[in-house]
Amino acid sequence: MSSSDLLLGLSQKALQLLQEDADKIEKLIEVQMENLTTRQCPLYEEVLDTQMYGLSREIDFAIRAELIQESAGKQIMVKLERNLAQLYEALSQSKE
Amino acid sequence: MSSSDLLLGLSQKALQLLQEDADKIEKLIEVQMENLTTRQCPLYEEVLDTQMYGLSREIDFAIRAELIQESAGKQIMVKLERNLAQLYEALSQSKE
Repeated sequence: MSSSDLLLGLSQKALQLLQEDADKIEKLIEVQMENLTTRQCPLYEEVLDTQMYGLSREIDFAIRAELIQESAGKQIMVKLERNLAQLYEALSQSKE
Repeated sequence: MSSSDLLLGLSQKALQLLQEDADKIEKLIEVQMENLTTRQCPLYEEVLDTQMYGLSREIDFAIRAELIQESAGKQIMVKLERNLAQLYEALSQSKE
């Protein structure tokens, strides 16, 4: 395997792992969105915040280790943050 | 550069980054150890726990991305956890 193939492979694997972790958070957000009125768990926000922090540390590390581009890492976080903001808005409206 | 040189370089860089992050936590522990009786900040434990969690996620990612060996990652965490346990023991004794 050539050096560039190896680097590409490692980079793709890193992005795939980060996307899998992001998908898990996405799933958590979806589940909570579906249960806005029926069963709100007060620990949900804390779990989501913790998972977001963990993922941001993984992404930051992957960027520093030169496995992924900064823009690719930011893209994952921005998408999640947008969905999280929607959840929090929906939560605050359902409480009104 | 050969593939094996590239992999070695990436692996060493990853380990170095993780060790730097571990050193920052180590420093936090030392500072708190030196200030056991003079100025205990109640947020210190929370900051340390958060940093430990962040580092554990970075290490777990580096292992899954096949950048570092599982044993190398564990070694970093075990050393920090030992020092953290000593700090918590010293903290609880200084409160008695």
